[in-house]
Amino acid sequence: MGFGDRLSQAVKNRKNAVCVGIDPRLNQLPSGLREGIHDEQGAADAFLTFSKMIIDVVAPLVPVVKPQSAFFEELGPLGVVALREVNRYATSKGLLVILDGKRNDIGSTATAYARAYLGQSSPFGADALTVSPFLGADSLEPFVDRCVEADAGIFVLVKTSNPGSGFMQDRVVDGSTISERIADLVQEKSLATASSPDAYGSIGCVVGATYPEQLAAMRMRMPNSWILIPGYGAQGGGASDVVHGFDENGLGALVNSSRGIIFAHENPKYGSFNDWQRAVEEATKDMILELGS
Amino acid sequence: MGFGDRLSQAVKNRKNAVCVGIDPRLNQLPSGLREGIHDEQGAADAFLTFSKMIIDVVAPLVPVVKPQSAFFEELGPLGVVALREVNRYATSKGLLVILDGKRNDIGSTATAYARAYLGQSSPFGADALTVSPFLGADSLEPFVDRCVEADAGIFVLVKTSNPGSGFMQDRVVDGSTISERIADLVQEKSLATASSPDAYGSIGCVVGATYPEQLAAMRMRMPNSWILIPGYGAQGGGASDVVHGFDENGLGALVNSSRGIIFAHENPKYGSFNDWQRAVEEATKDMILELGS
Repeated sequence: MGFGDRLSQAVKNRKNAVCVGIDPRLNQLPSGLREGIHDEQGAADAFLTFSKMIIDVVAPLVPVVKPQSAFFEELGPLGVVALREVNRYATSKGLLVILDGKRNDIGSTATAYARAYLGQSSPFGADALTVSPFLGADSLEPFVDRCVEADAGIFVLVKTSNPGSGFMQDRVVDGSTISERIADLVQEKSLATASSPDAYGSIGCVVGATYPEQLAAMRMRMPNSWILIPGYGAQGGGASDVVHGFDENGLGALVNSSRGIIFAHENPKYGSFNDWQRAVEEATKDMILELGS
Repeated sequence: MGFGDRLSQAVKNRKNAVCVGIDPRLNQLPSGLREGIHDEQGAADAFLTFSKMIIDVVAPLVPVVKPQSAFFEELGPLGVVALREVNRYATSKGLLVILDGKRNDIGSTATAYARAYLGQSSPFGADALTVSPFLGADSLEPFVDRCVEADAGIFVLVKTSNPGSGFMQDRVVDGSTISERIADLVQEKSLATASSPDAYGSIGCVVGATYPEQLAAMRMRMPNSWILIPGYGAQGGGASDVVHGFDENGLGALVNSSRGIIFAHENPKYGSFNDWQRAVEEATKDMILELGS
């Protein structure tokens, strides 16, 4: 089954569209996990333990997790070894894994990235990968091909959540913004991979929660594309903002929260729990309720 | 000494501006190196051996190597472990290392990539990293800060060498292409990091050899920015194309060749050498001569 349908099924099974971002940082780990770390191996072990404990809590609750590659790479190669284990563990617990790596390159180099990450049998074993469109339509082809081959997906950056995203993305050319041009490309590719004209295909996109009016327009512009929405919570987007990403059946959007969930123990609202995993659980349940209302 | 000046010195020392791209692929390794590979560790070992043997040949000849991260990532985490060793080995042989990873993200995530790669004391130990500008000017700031801190550099994608690069990069907004807008940003940031108004700073750019007329314009538009020029040889750019990237002192441009050098043993011109390293050496010397004439 293609990734678009797999994701639809996972969201229906869990009855919510929450994606938990796994963005570990040494100085924010719960105190018991960050003590006695002296080297790269110790840090990688701590990231792996922390990530697995997050996964244990959220696997029964949400359909998807999104590990952020940068934080594992920051530790060095041993962090990258841990990242693969995180992906594998999440898969073993029934979660879909979107690796946030924002990769791309041209030709055979793009193919190498696609092979590295896409598909559970790939070296990194992710179900999907975030991809940058800067190099043009041809740079996306190797990823699209691999998605079809491996029942995997990509999420192409269309409109990012940062304040400076307009520098390139909002520029208007022949009546359309750069983001809209990319969106049209994403829709075309995703429709081509969809199991039916009213299903979601394997080529998703990223549109930040911090730009709700664009989110509404993008939902209409890409009827066959899953929208991954970052920027919920810590970056300022709320439930009333992300609602525009969903279709009338409550599908089509995944809402990601990273820090707000995995570092819930830092939030006074959840700080009264002695157990940091309990804080993660409550924060996840609260987000599910917020989005459901 | 800042990266811009370090690179100037390295190019002057070697009397050429050749960058050797280290893009290993299993099916193109010299036959002796690709036999008996059964698993990820075996493939990673072969990549490391191959890369070190390339470095041994080119270190006395050229100033810079550019490992392509994608091909190491394609092997899985053990490939990434090998990549770090490649970087370290090249540094130990007196080469500058530009890691081609085309990374970027926003805020603290961009900071994580910058810390992972930039500076010889960073986990991956590269002198410079290729970076995508798609997320906007603010996404480059953490890299610029880290460049200053670690005497490191970045090469921002301005105009890539692939046929489809125009999809976004050539779009005209208010009289300037997207590439030109990025170029102006690169120039501003690089000037701010330069040791004098007529020196090259630490913020370089990538402009493909396959667009020579744009290369000439970009040279003038970014007087304080090193231009890394891919697309020489295998992708179709020649010496008469890349000449436009250099200033009147023969500085300011680095010309990369990957396949044409590291897989020179596949080229009939060099195939008569029994020793594949000899083929690499002759191909490197020929490229130096071509660029010097």
